[in-house]
Amino acid sequence: MKRKSLQGDLCPIARTLDVIGDWWSLLIIRDALMGARRFSQFQKNLGVAKNILTTRLRTLVAQGILEVKPASDGSAYQDYVPTDKARALFPVLVALRQWGEEYAFAPNEKFSALVDRKDGQPLGKLQIRAHDGRVLEQTDTKVLIPASA
Amino acid sequence: MKRKSLQGDLCPIARTLDVIGDWWSLLIIRDALMGARRFSQFQKNLGVAKNILTTRLRTLVAQGILEVKPASDGSAYQDYVPTDKARALFPVLVALRQWGEEYAFAPNEKFSALVDRKDGQPLGKLQIRAHDGRVLEQTDTKVLIPASA
Repeated sequence: MKRKSLQGDLCPIARTLDVIGDWWSLLIIRDALMGARRFSQFQKNLGVAKNILTTRLRTLVAQGILEVKPASDGSAYQDYVPTDKARALFPVLVALRQWGEEYAFAPNEKFSALVDRKDGQPLGKLQIRAHDGRVLEQTDTKVLIPASA
Repeated sequence: MKRKSLQGDLCPIARTLDVIGDWWSLLIIRDALMGARRFSQFQKNLGVAKNILTTRLRTLVAQGILEVKPASDGSAYQDYVPTDKARALFPVLVALRQWGEEYAFAPNEKFSALVDRKDGQPLGKLQIRAHDGRVLEQTDTKVLIPASA
């Protein structure tokens, strides 16, 4: 399906989806943040067709989300290394994960867990907070459109 | 492009993307949380083709993310009303927005802002925290795969 570009959209959600709003891209970023570096690792983890993976990696590199570096083991392979721009997507991944934990598994179904390395405990639930730390609900917020847009 | 289903995946991120991992679905949820209710409102806000919108709304209703209700104004139209399952996606939208604010706009470009109704200030930056409230970086975390998966 051909997608409409959201590049000119005023909404930062729409712009972000324009950059990474694709299953594979987000799952590639997830795996890169967890340590995957090689084409073959991404392919094995994701079970994705090589041509799709090639396209997605190229886009992520062009976007500055992954960097291509010489292989860390001195071999002829390339490493795909996440940048700060990739690391900044971690809250997106945590938010997707926490929703999935609650709504995308049957009651007794097992799932992979994201835990604190220090004590092995699952992370706290993400909270939306005001600039001064008050916890907010969605209904406590509103969207402002810039005046001269 | 035909997508591989991630329905059997152990990772809650993959499962969530299987449910809502589509631009339009997330943007429909965004608009529903901000008050859009009618087919025509979604269509106008998003500039999306009617057949795509019809399919996405049907899927979101089937998933229990939107509910169909008689129009609040007593007309013959239907309202699409967000459920708790939709409201639980608010942190995903906030995380996408905050990344977009930082990385998807040129320095002087304007964007729509999500603010606290109480004081009109932008929200605080999402923080990843341990169960006891310590702020964590991605590198402080790891993924555990269940043993007998």
